[in-house]
Amino acid sequence: MFIDRLIEKIKQTNNPSVVGLDPRPEFIPEHILQQARAQEGNPFDAIGRAFFEFNRQIIDAIADVVPCVKPQLACYEAIGLPGMLAFEKTVRYAQKNGLLVIADGKRNDIGSSAEGYAQGFIENTAFACDALTVNPYLGVDGIEPFVNSCNTYRTGIFVLAKTSNPSSGQLQDLLLQSGESVAEKVAALINEWGHNLIGINNYSSVGAVVGATYPEQAEKLRAIMPHAYILVPGYGAQGGSAKSILPNFNRDGLGAIVNASRSIMLAHKSAIWRNQFTAVQFAAAARAEALRMRDEIVLALEEL
Amino acid sequence: MFIDRLIEKIKQTNNPSVVGLDPRPEFIPEHILQQARAQEGNPFDAIGRAFFEFNRQIIDAIADVVPCVKPQLACYEAIGLPGMLAFEKTVRYAQKNGLLVIADGKRNDIGSSAEGYAQGFIENTAFACDALTVNPYLGVDGIEPFVNSCNTYRTGIFVLAKTSNPSSGQLQDLLLQSGESVAEKVAALINEWGHNLIGINNYSSVGAVVGATYPEQAEKLRAIMPHAYILVPGYGAQGGSAKSILPNFNRDGLGAIVNASRSIMLAHKSAIWRNQFTAVQFAAAARAEALRMRDEIVLALEEL
Repeated sequence: MFIDRLIEKIKQTNNPSVVGLDPRPEFIPEHILQQARAQEGNPFDAIGRAFFEFNRQIIDAIADVVPCVKPQLACYEAIGLPGMLAFEKTVRYAQKNGLLVIADGKRNDIGSSAEGYAQGFIENTAFACDALTVNPYLGVDGIEPFVNSCNTYRTGIFVLAKTSNPSSGQLQDLLLQSGESVAEKVAALINEWGHNLIGINNYSSVGAVVGATYPEQAEKLRAIMPHAYILVPGYGAQGGSAKSILPNFNRDGLGAIVNASRSIMLAHKSAIWRNQFTAVQFAAAARAEALRMRDEIVLALEEL
Repeated sequence: MFIDRLIEKIKQTNNPSVVGLDPRPEFIPEHILQQARAQEGNPFDAIGRAFFEFNRQIIDAIADVVPCVKPQLACYEAIGLPGMLAFEKTVRYAQKNGLLVIADGKRNDIGSSAEGYAQGFIENTAFACDALTVNPYLGVDGIEPFVNSCNTYRTGIFVLAKTSNPSSGQLQDLLLQSGESVAEKVAALINEWGHNLIGINNYSSVGAVVGATYPEQAEKLRAIMPHAYILVPGYGAQGGSAKSILPNFNRDGLGAIVNASRSIMLAHKSAIWRNQFTAVQFAAAARAEALRMRDEIVLALEEL
């Protein structure tokens, strides 16, 4: 079951964090772009090659430190087919190096189309990731096809409950006549949807997304869906701190996995690391930051 | 502006409908699959080739009859890269034949990633469609990057308000403390988000999705967002009739565009057409059904 594989990797690395592989042309060090442009093809082919080389070096640097990576599909689709080729190669390379891969696609559609996305991302064909982020707006029949795939292929989903962005409350915080917020209602549904996929650690392969930027709400949402593993974006660059992610964890020290993207990918430019690493050493800087983040989270978790 | 180009095409064809290009392996006639398998490559390469050939023949058959096609991205992503290649070729071929292309991707993410999807689908790079369907769950900062692209590149979006599937009410029909349903609140936001993209016909390039399967709600939603063009899925195979789509239109006979996918793609298997067309003639059957649907909708619109 996906969730048990994830928890095993988290325990093995003693690190409940995930590195976002979200390349953008402006993030890629010049020496990699130059190398990529030296080969044949149009500008997007070169960017796609640069994306993969950038990811490959980061994966090499962090594969023994983190349990999991999360490529953001928007970054790859932004440049069309060469981007999707880079995505596919990244997924394969990460898995070959023992990492689990969560495709961050926030996919959603009515039943038959949701089946298509499930086939593409979390079955053992096509892009074949270990898990996928999913949007709940269409209700259960937009979720069930994913849950069925999770069951058959031992993969997972993380359903958006409360997202990390500033305007997430515009819909998610609205209060229903029942007294709950929309996000709380979604959390209750996530708990229900994951009921048949609970593994040996008492967590479900149907997880949730709750932004690090809303710790008060995280506490409530955590209680509503006790079996959901929570993927927590918004740590680092978006402003979430090690303290702010604590409410997403349970007292067993499990229950959440914290994502950082820009703070790892661009560690060599950060205030902490820029004096120690050049752009050519971006992957070493990414490793240093991944270790720092691990230690910071593990220390914070002692307060649970 | 996208919306004015769409309305011009609708007037020119006298047809407010859109054909869904949602290929699945089981939809493709055997002679096309055989032809595709005869070339080199893995099984998915063959399916991707078959998808494009299937779409190409349908486009040839309907290009003078309908204003617009809507490829469902899930169908293409289901088979990975060969699917996305078929998608790209389909978009180009449809546009070359004068059709507008709405990518049905229901994309959504926080600001910087939404920019990535906008770049991928509705800017003049990468997949470069004319419009994209978008999910509103993340609020305005998941929408604004798309709206900015629409403004710069003269493209459009259709934001999910009320989807056509049976469980759409699980979230969308929930009543808020304000008295509105979630879908009604979203409709109000859509009206607001589209304010700066209203064209010469008094409609906005920020449109909405409202399923044909919920006509009573469509009437309310239509009133809440008077300037939104409504993309109406669920006609035909999902059970929506010509009468049920009327509430989505305004008295000017404009304001909505009705999608049919399976009833067109599989017309040669339908009760209406199966005695007149063989599988080899699927495209001619698709044309016959597209004409029948046009006439049915145009007749129904006389009741407005």
